[in-house]
Amino acid sequence: MKHVRLLTPGPTMVPQEILAEMARPTGHHRSAESRRALREVTEALQYLFQTNATCLTVTGSGSAAMEAAIVTTCAPGRKALVIRSGKFGERWAKVCAAFGIDHVTYDVDWGTAPSAEGIAEQLAADASIGYVIVVHCETSTATACDLEAIAKAVRSHDVLLIVDAVASAGAIPLRMDAWGVDVAVVGGQKAPMLPPGLSFVAVNDRAWAVADSFAPPAFYLDLKAYRKALAADYSPPYTPSVPLIMAARKALASIREMGIEAVWAKVATLARATRAAGEAIGLSLFSKAPSDSVTAFCVPDGIDDAVLRGRLRDEYGVLIAGGQDRLKGRIVRIGHLGHVDAVDTLGALAALEIVLNSMGYSCTLGAGVAAAQRVLAASAS
Amino acid sequence: MKHVRLLTPGPTMVPQEILAEMARPTGHHRSAESRRALREVTEALQYLFQTNATCLTVTGSGSAAMEAAIVTTCAPGRKALVIRSGKFGERWAKVCAAFGIDHVTYDVDWGTAPSAEGIAEQLAADASIGYVIVVHCETSTATACDLEAIAKAVRSHDVLLIVDAVASAGAIPLRMDAWGVDVAVVGGQKAPMLPPGLSFVAVNDRAWAVADSFAPPAFYLDLKAYRKALAADYSPPYTPSVPLIMAARKALASIREMGIEAVWAKVATLARATRAAGEAIGLSLFSKAPSDSVTAFCVPDGIDDAVLRGRLRDEYGVLIAGGQDRLKGRIVRIGHLGHVDAVDTLGALAALEIVLNSMGYSCTLGAGVAAAQRVLAASAS
Repeated sequence: MKHVRLLTPGPTMVPQEILAEMARPTGHHRSAESRRALREVTEALQYLFQTNATCLTVTGSGSAAMEAAIVTTCAPGRKALVIRSGKFGERWAKVCAAFGIDHVTYDVDWGTAPSAEGIAEQLAADASIGYVIVVHCETSTATACDLEAIAKAVRSHDVLLIVDAVASAGAIPLRMDAWGVDVAVVGGQKAPMLPPGLSFVAVNDRAWAVADSFAPPAFYLDLKAYRKALAADYSPPYTPSVPLIMAARKALASIREMGIEAVWAKVATLARATRAAGEAIGLSLFSKAPSDSVTAFCVPDGIDDAVLRGRLRDEYGVLIAGGQDRLKGRIVRIGHLGHVDAVDTLGALAALEIVLNSMGYSCTLGAGVAAAQRVLAASAS
Repeated sequence: MKHVRLLTPGPTMVPQEILAEMARPTGHHRSAESRRALREVTEALQYLFQTNATCLTVTGSGSAAMEAAIVTTCAPGRKALVIRSGKFGERWAKVCAAFGIDHVTYDVDWGTAPSAEGIAEQLAADASIGYVIVVHCETSTATACDLEAIAKAVRSHDVLLIVDAVASAGAIPLRMDAWGVDVAVVGGQKAPMLPPGLSFVAVNDRAWAVADSFAPPAFYLDLKAYRKALAADYSPPYTPSVPLIMAARKALASIREMGIEAVWAKVATLARATRAAGEAIGLSLFSKAPSDSVTAFCVPDGIDDAVLRGRLRDEYGVLIAGGQDRLKGRIVRIGHLGHVDAVDTLGALAALEIVLNSMGYSCTLGAGVAAAQRVLAASAS
């Protein structure tokens, strides 16, 4: 019976209050209580995304919701520009391919963020682009782009901006309406602090106008069915995960209670503290544009990352993530989004120092923790 | 929805698996399943106390179980010697007084441990003493006595040794049979990792022989009723807290699985790490004979302990205990027993440093954590 702390960048830790909420009796999904819960989730999502757009709840992973966003809003006749700067950008290109959605890709190096200028150039060069698909925080590389600037660049063209906000919404600043994002997607098991199983999509009127112009190659993931549900007094199209919706109501309400700016500030502080700790013990950041929702450190020479992570897990009950695909074995990733807090982070950093040291990586025990403490102390005052 | 960590020396943190166990349907307390659970708890308690004595489960606090032990086994005609070295020693004298049990007290300074020699002198001086009541770990002063030596001294007299093991059983070495302890008591909300509500008493044959010689001034807390239950196929005398018994079965099984020596070693390492941290940042230990189950630091001059603990709780989600009675405001206490682990402890120590610093107590951030890390690193290798 070990204490296990998820410092992975999703799934994140689930507060006990949320687990308890899921243990309540599951009512019918069309009962007044379930429909009221879905309405409250819908409203809380508007706050999370900072939008007046329609917010939809899908029983499925972030990938399911992102697929739903793409197939529902990318109408035939226009091309999608898929920005690829990591594993998830690559995935959205695969989704386009799977559904025969005409698309081009714009590749930037893993660990760097796509720039507004770069995207503007792509748009200027190809008038047939109707959709820009971009990942706000590329979890695989722990990199965030300047979404506000990108949205501004995109807005001067007649294109829809579809944003993978799976690891950003509720973690780092995202103001959908103020910035001009048309579609955004988040996963429940990320900043919303839920066990996996739900994802959320916000679709604005501009995107609905496109969506209403064609029949998507979709059934379960046709977002128009979910929109219809909202109009039908929140009676969902297919059986959703009712306990997860109850949990989402509670979790999103707690984010609202804390205030989204305070949540963003908390995540940013944990990220700054973690980066400071890494710097103090000589770990290099992988990303040239680090996201505050997740930090990737390069695995030092001579250290086997599977052993490192395994020992952190088995000896200290701390789960951090490794690298994916081409970054496997090269980076470790520590999440800052969701329920994780300063004490979890400080404890995990202390454990990381001990394990690194015992594996032959020379660092002064406590040096990283002290750097993190200084950041936390400064942010508290 | 804050992360709250109980680093209080009881109640201690309850593992999620245990909470889930309590959420199972509550059967009737005389059902085969409930009786089987009580039997398994009874057997696991023998392992916990390292005894073949009869182990009884009382629905009530540690004080209830200790009262039960005293009133059931202190027969009229002989005196009890109550060792008072803190709040709980004082309590057992009050229990004796409440039931008209003839008793004398042997006072030692708070923060010091009663010695075997001192107790031997008391016994030598007064042949009417029939019972020695001693607290193994005096939580109020974070002090442990040398129970093995005390038991040895007591064994050369015809007296029963009744031990308050509320904060020691399952945390620091206690070998009831090998040492010659006659009665021992533990609370569920301490090392056994349960939510409050249950307590456990072990009574050996020598103590039963005395108990069977008189009618105690007790009904609910007459341990003979509980012994009878065991003989009656584990059908309890009064309605016990069934969910807590289910939880106890799971928790005690996990202690057995880990091995009692490994549990003791874990607690000792956390205590050593915490003491090293305190020393590194200039905090004084209150106790002259520190228990490994809880560490008491003196509150530094100029620091308001209520503010310190309040800020740790509100800003970092870390609960530590203050002082009780005459030690109120003078000490803070950090628990090492139960589910708490290295990462909790390291994180809490890091938070303690930050808060102390911000309150004007000068210490180098990270210095205490580093000292704790060195202890943990050494114990792991």
